[in-house]
Amino acid sequence: MGEVVAVDLPEPVAGSGGADETLGRSERKHRAILEAAQEMFLAGGYLGTNMDELAARSGVSKQTVYKHFGSKEALFVELVTSMTDAAGDRVHTDIADPTEADDLPSFLEAYADRQLDIVMTPTILQLRRLVIGEVTRFPELAEALYEHGPQRAIATLAGMFERLAERGLLRVDDPTAAATEFNWLVMGEPVNRAMLLGDAAIPTAAERHAQVSAAVRVFLAAYGAR
Amino acid sequence: MGEVVAVDLPEPVAGSGGADETLGRSERKHRAILEAAQEMFLAGGYLGTNMDELAARSGVSKQTVYKHFGSKEALFVELVTSMTDAAGDRVHTDIADPTEADDLPSFLEAYADRQLDIVMTPTILQLRRLVIGEVTRFPELAEALYEHGPQRAIATLAGMFERLAERGLLRVDDPTAAATEFNWLVMGEPVNRAMLLGDAAIPTAAERHAQVSAAVRVFLAAYGAR
Repeated sequence: MGEVVAVDLPEPVAGSGGADETLGRSERKHRAILEAAQEMFLAGGYLGTNMDELAARSGVSKQTVYKHFGSKEALFVELVTSMTDAAGDRVHTDIADPTEADDLPSFLEAYADRQLDIVMTPTILQLRRLVIGEVTRFPELAEALYEHGPQRAIATLAGMFERLAERGLLRVDDPTAAATEFNWLVMGEPVNRAMLLGDAAIPTAAERHAQVSAAVRVFLAAYGAR
Repeated sequence: MGEVVAVDLPEPVAGSGGADETLGRSERKHRAILEAAQEMFLAGGYLGTNMDELAARSGVSKQTVYKHFGSKEALFVELVTSMTDAAGDRVHTDIADPTEADDLPSFLEAYADRQLDIVMTPTILQLRRLVIGEVTRFPELAEALYEHGPQRAIATLAGMFERLAERGLLRVDDPTAAATEFNWLVMGEPVNRAMLLGDAAIPTAAERHAQVSAAVRVFLAAYGAR
């Protein structure tokens, strides 16, 4: 499952001053454990991950794993929250300013293309499957994924729609409701397909863009000012 | 998890003639095993379900469980497919004839209300979580859920939209694309919320209907004939 390790984990803080070699080693171990955890939890699930094997794959002792993360559960929580935050950050940096959007359909399409690109990566999809499968055991992880994923995207969109409405480009009474509809017009089908049919069902960039254009057309029929 | 056993499993075939008590007993056992399996797999997942405990809860020996279902894996597959089919059948029976729809918004709302009611039951949501969490181990189950769930709903909708377009009530070039958009406008937010936030996040019937009405309004803005 080579693709499953494609997501960047947050960079470790470099040893302050660069001279502290002990700290550097400790952080390299921390990172090696997280990388092995990402690979093993995503492939085998929570119950299917064996901590002896994880230690071996990280090149450290099992004692070291527990020294760094406390427990299997704590390691799992740390992995999921760091991956979710990293993906959310990638969606929400460098968003164009909607008040400078000349061409509204193109602006909305560019936003949706970017969001779909990030959500439709095999690692993020597998993280979502894993967290959904573990809702009963780890409800707080699913909550974090909900808040840092769709909730954050919808709040960002709602803010954009409000500004676009102020400029007279959209007619929107309830920006959050409109943002929720936009989000699921864009994401519903491809996310559901990929959740259930696996990575082979991830649409190509061209297919994603066609789906995004159609979604924007429906959205603007309901909310466009003209 | 009382609510988790609320879905009707398919009725066992009654012993032909009613006189064959051995067959009747065998079918009662078969059903008891499936009921225990539903409760345990939905609550604990595939790996978390212990076959000794399952046999004890069914009131039969472990040997009897294997005689009926062959393996833990086969029992799991049988459970998921029978639940998926039963839920799909409930969505798709007794659909009103769209060519007799006088009031198009009300017709579409009634369809969507019915679909959301069935999908938003705790047992069906937990089945979906379980299957998504096991995509890697059991890809064929997720495929079955996809085909018998959203795919079947979208195909039914596409057929309705085609007939409504023939009557001049909708303007639809690609009925499947329009049906897909309708489906996710209606289902995206509530299904995602419930998937990640658990049964406490299931919207009330009134909340579901408000969401459905808004979705129908957006849909008709894009595809309504007038």
